[in-house]
Amino acid sequence: MTGREGGADLSPPPGESPIVVLVRPQLAENIGAVARAMANGGLFHLRLVAPRDGWPQERAWRAASGADRILDAAQIFADVPAAVADCHRVLATCPRPRHVVIPVLTARAAAAELRGTAARGLRCAVLFGPERAGLDNEDLARADTLVRYPLNPAFMSLNLAQAVMVLAYEWWTAAETTPPRVLMTNETKPAPKARVEAFLDRLVAELDASGFLDNAPKRPGMVRNLRHWFERGEVTEQELRTLHGVVTELSRGRMRRGRPDPEDGAA
Amino acid sequence: MTGREGGADLSPPPGESPIVVLVRPQLAENIGAVARAMANGGLFHLRLVAPRDGWPQERAWRAASGADRILDAAQIFADVPAAVADCHRVLATCPRPRHVVIPVLTARAAAAELRGTAARGLRCAVLFGPERAGLDNEDLARADTLVRYPLNPAFMSLNLAQAVMVLAYEWWTAAETTPPRVLMTNETKPAPKARVEAFLDRLVAELDASGFLDNAPKRPGMVRNLRHWFERGEVTEQELRTLHGVVTELSRGRMRRGRPDPEDGAA
Repeated sequence: MTGREGGADLSPPPGESPIVVLVRPQLAENIGAVARAMANGGLFHLRLVAPRDGWPQERAWRAASGADRILDAAQIFADVPAAVADCHRVLATCPRPRHVVIPVLTARAAAAELRGTAARGLRCAVLFGPERAGLDNEDLARADTLVRYPLNPAFMSLNLAQAVMVLAYEWWTAAETTPPRVLMTNETKPAPKARVEAFLDRLVAELDASGFLDNAPKRPGMVRNLRHWFERGEVTEQELRTLHGVVTELSRGRMRRGRPDPEDGAA
Repeated sequence: MTGREGGADLSPPPGESPIVVLVRPQLAENIGAVARAMANGGLFHLRLVAPRDGWPQERAWRAASGADRILDAAQIFADVPAAVADCHRVLATCPRPRHVVIPVLTARAAAAELRGTAARGLRCAVLFGPERAGLDNEDLARADTLVRYPLNPAFMSLNLAQAVMVLAYEWWTAAETTPPRVLMTNETKPAPKARVEAFLDRLVAELDASGFLDNAPKRPGMVRNLRHWFERGEVTEQELRTLHGVVTELSRGRMRRGRPDPEDGAA
């Protein structure tokens, strides 16, 4: 399907990347949703084996949310052997493999293996079966490896695009360098410890002046708890400026109102 | 929505498990697809904040592929604060967080944290925004942590049910004990080494008789290559029986036909 102009500016990634092979897919909407999931995970190459309703199908493009390029470049084959003839490795997704002797990988292990295979310049296909029946035994015998997702065995009905999504997500994640936890900051950085201490010193001085820390035996613990709370939050410089303003305004209010109610917050 | 009889036999998992909160979802089909993805990943608790087209919607049940129980038990709230009032932790999924200072986890790190939170008996909600716009800044300010999926930054259009699928998949996987690689067998086990050796001895003897191994300098290497090939395949007892039969039949053919063409396979 050439000559289309719509959609996101997607193109094949450099080198080899896994080919998603949909075997006898039924609904064009699902093919479009598969293309969208592939785009999310940085996959590009789509092959269709004997799509039930023929090809192309406008409904696929409508369901692809802009992953048009992937559908434009999709290749059609009459059967699985033709679709994988130029591939060095063939993985097949299969929720309940039976009566076969074949290595079975989790989706995560499969993604690592796909990355390794691509790095060696080898072409790899991943087969996904039709919506209801899944891959049949002849299809499975064309694969050198099965992929089984660890998912709830009490509810195995996995949507086709969801199955592709999990693999695409794992493919992308296998090469991700995002740290698992970051603190998002914008225009501001976490404050250095000396500035946190300077604020805490000022806060404690104001609390001493207000009488909040008059209980001498409890005072060290109360100050320590405040310090823990501030340290935990990874406070930023911008936030410290705001907090200084808060203390200033509350102190002014106290000075205007006189000493606060001793019950107020002195827990 | 009570009194329905259809769908899979799903029930809440024991203890606390994450609550999926769909904030102002637009399409009932997407709510159904979310329930299906939740069932795949072993999640059960669904809350809807101000669904655009009201609730219940028959189309949601039709799209849930049997995850009816999750929809039957879904709770409706007018706004995010009401939906998370009884939760101890609130995570919010957000593809492009900006202008906020808040911890951001990958989906995988979030799943580990959700498991830890649940193990402590704390209730955790995960917010997902409306289909097009995503969560707004007021919604994000209700969260203590953001979740950002590592996915293709060139194609950020992530379907709502796909977003829930990735989280549900990571939630399930975080507690999975499936080894990343297994060899599936049925009715048969990998053969013990002695039986592999016995077959190889027989094969080599037949190959010697056929003249295939007549090249004395090459013979050790050829035998070693055959052994490597057999060892690599993790051959099963059933397969060994088949292979013995193959050798028997081929040898009979050779004896009927006389010595084979010396070019035949002597690479």
